[in-house]
Amino acid sequence: MHKTSLQALKKAAGARNLETSPAILSLYGGDASKRQQMPAAVVRAVNTQQVADVLACCHSYGLAVTPRGAGSGLTGGAVASPGGIVLDMSAMRKIELVTKHRLLKAEAGALVDEVKRAAAEAGLYFPPDPSSAAFATIGGSVAENAGGLRAVKYGVTADYVLGLTAVLMDGRILRLGGQTTKSVVGYNLTQLMVGSEGTLAVITQATLKLVPPPEAVFTLSACFSSSEEALALVERLNAQTIVPTALEFMDARTLEAVRLQGGFNLPEDARAMLLLEIDGAPEVVARQGRQMEEAAGAAGGFALQSARNQEEAANVWQVRRGMSQAMFRLGSHKRNQDIALPLGSLSRILPLLKRIEEDTGTSIATFGHAGDGNLHVNVMYQGQDPAQTEKARQAVSQLFAHTLHLGGSVSGEHGVGLTKLPGARMQLDEVALELMWEIKKSFDPSGLLNPGKALPPLKLNQ
Amino acid sequence: MHKTSLQALKKAAGARNLETSPAILSLYGGDASKRQQMPAAVVRAVNTQQVADVLACCHSYGLAVTPRGAGSGLTGGAVASPGGIVLDMSAMRKIELVTKHRLLKAEAGALVDEVKRAAAEAGLYFPPDPSSAAFATIGGSVAENAGGLRAVKYGVTADYVLGLTAVLMDGRILRLGGQTTKSVVGYNLTQLMVGSEGTLAVITQATLKLVPPPEAVFTLSACFSSSEEALALVERLNAQTIVPTALEFMDARTLEAVRLQGGFNLPEDARAMLLLEIDGAPEVVARQGRQMEEAAGAAGGFALQSARNQEEAANVWQVRRGMSQAMFRLGSHKRNQDIALPLGSLSRILPLLKRIEEDTGTSIATFGHAGDGNLHVNVMYQGQDPAQTEKARQAVSQLFAHTLHLGGSVSGEHGVGLTKLPGARMQLDEVALELMWEIKKSFDPSGLLNPGKALPPLKLNQ
Repeated sequence: MHKTSLQALKKAAGARNLETSPAILSLYGGDASKRQQMPAAVVRAVNTQQVADVLACCHSYGLAVTPRGAGSGLTGGAVASPGGIVLDMSAMRKIELVTKHRLLKAEAGALVDEVKRAAAEAGLYFPPDPSSAAFATIGGSVAENAGGLRAVKYGVTADYVLGLTAVLMDGRILRLGGQTTKSVVGYNLTQLMVGSEGTLAVITQATLKLVPPPEAVFTLSACFSSSEEALALVERLNAQTIVPTALEFMDARTLEAVRLQGGFNLPEDARAMLLLEIDGAPEVVARQGRQMEEAAGAAGGFALQSARNQEEAANVWQVRRGMSQAMFRLGSHKRNQDIALPLGSLSRILPLLKRIEEDTGTSIATFGHAGDGNLHVNVMYQGQDPAQTEKARQAVSQLFAHTLHLGGSVSGEHGVGLTKLPGARMQLDEVALELMWEIKKSFDPSGLLNPGKALPPLKLNQ
Repeated sequence: MHKTSLQALKKAAGARNLETSPAILSLYGGDASKRQQMPAAVVRAVNTQQVADVLACCHSYGLAVTPRGAGSGLTGGAVASPGGIVLDMSAMRKIELVTKHRLLKAEAGALVDEVKRAAAEAGLYFPPDPSSAAFATIGGSVAENAGGLRAVKYGVTADYVLGLTAVLMDGRILRLGGQTTKSVVGYNLTQLMVGSEGTLAVITQATLKLVPPPEAVFTLSACFSSSEEALALVERLNAQTIVPTALEFMDARTLEAVRLQGGFNLPEDARAMLLLEIDGAPEVVARQGRQMEEAAGAAGGFALQSARNQEEAANVWQVRRGMSQAMFRLGSHKRNQDIALPLGSLSRILPLLKRIEEDTGTSIATFGHAGDGNLHVNVMYQGQDPAQTEKARQAVSQLFAHTLHLGGSVSGEHGVGLTKLPGARMQLDEVALELMWEIKKSFDPSGLLNPGKALPPLKLNQ
């Protein structure tokens, strides 16, 4: 970085908040997508005004800025721009609880679990629970519109964002939304910001709606002898009046990975598994729990295990939470796609996944949020082998085509980042994409804010 | 209208879909805001392609276009532009139910009640229920982000919009969102369109999420000797784990209007009333119903009436649905403001409303969706009297100032339209408003689509 701009940046950020040592830079250059690029500096954000000063400074010196929460994003949204700065939001983590309004205000760097705990201390509940809740920041969750296990009943992060404070690339501070659950004044820029992956403005604070916590929880796991059998039950449950809190699916390859990982007793003949959670008033949870057990049994489920409290349930969920990691028993590299399908088309993806495996010689393990049609399809391969890497790329491309053909979306909760740009290009309407680029230009005319992320170029060869 | 443009319009619309007779024009020039302006023509929309042709034609001839559902909006969003055309969407009312995906696709002109009935026929539920459901269109509901009685538990129209087909002013067709509940690909233009009041694009079709219907419903009405007592109970209920489906409040003046209207037996000493609905599984509804009755009694409620099925409940709700009309017993004219307050600040508005009445000499009747902080504050006055009209204007201005001071919003569900532009200007962040205008320019560079609605000018004297 040029000496003049470095000096200006030091002044704007505060000397102690600027890092330029190569070790730190490489630490902050990548994210959970495993992609990495070297920034020229890392700035630690301390408050909204300082973020405004830093962005204004970067704007005048033409420095690209990548906002970064915990770097837990899976699609490369927080990968640094070479020569740009990484704006580390993780130190801004104040949480202000306003119990009487049933909301809280969290700075961008607060962890999702910290937000959940703060709500719980006031007898309230912040439902979004991405698997990364223990280390992901709320700013990143809002920027990516993180989903999670319990989205079937409770929806996604977007559904809990009432207001935002954010900073535009030119340093102007933006206040959006408010403290009410209903408001129809002006365009909904709050929801436009949610899921915009740090490309429109840097979120510094979010006002989040809280809800009453469930009084009781029931958890059930059931094994099946095929994925078809398990998903047939999911489709039947989706057609009923019971809305489960979570309804997770695991296919045979996923269970194979769990067996290889060890630590869990899975029946030998289990070729698929469902994890189901219901919450609400105790008497209903008890009744619906019994109904679910019966339904699972009638549908061919075996080795049923139920949990009637959080402690017992934690054990059941542990299998699910460790799944992403267990995948690496199947291959050194993973292309994790989080496709979303229309509810009634879930089972139609199964023969297509088999065909992709046959066509490309890859190994595909599928698990995820079957209750809302959001499946994690993991294409596993040996990354050292260029031929396998190419096959994996082809498998993903075929998966996207099938997903879109079924009326689905190439990303249900991970965002586009860098890794899903080709899929996003396939999915998005041409006119809509043009408008998105226009909006990007309105918010960030210089194009310096998290460049190259979220929006695919209008022309494929651009 | 110039003869050439009229000819071109006739060709684009189809001759039978074009109306220019003054009687028709005046019928379509206004809406439920009671404002009216004369358009030069009314075009009946018949399908998306024809809407695209009509808009492209208007675009090239510089004709302003006002999309119109049923004209039931309360803030003037469908008031015609003088010399422009009104695009009547009410004939496009096809509904396609996709039960297995738990969604339906409705053309813009389908009535909200038709959508609800279509869902019910498939054993599903479309929760949004604005008081105008019997005559409002779904396109208008989406464009205004209509709320309604049951938003406390079920949210607003926005929460059910998965995808949209819309047409830009230049005639380009836009396809947004999709058929999945989760999707994070590109910016959320679907939610940007919701509530944009026909100023960004003309919605021709919406894909709407359906949910399982409640198994049981319990309804309770309770009278109170003061608004303070009633709202104290609301605030206590809001702090509990029970989320009512609806929680409606009526103050003393509202009850006075209902008495003058006649047809209902209200106790003499009732000075406020709450209407409460719970739905869900039968055993919980029964228990929570008893808890609500006890809570209402303990809080000073009297003349409690409960209903345990839809038929009994319909009678209770009839009072509430007729309320807007009953208001006119208090004055010939009404300024109906639908402010939204943070949940814990509800009761703080009561002394402020009294002060406004005293300051301005107006009569203010308040009722509405207390459960989500959304109150309908009706400033009643004799419209023939210019002094009273001015006082009413002042009362609204004071109301907005107090609402914003309490952290609220000047519109919870009616939108800005024409009538709330000054309030919107007070509420919106300056930088946010600039961005909204930029977005408007991206979608509608010629500014011909529903001009002058929804967004206040950047400069107050503009």
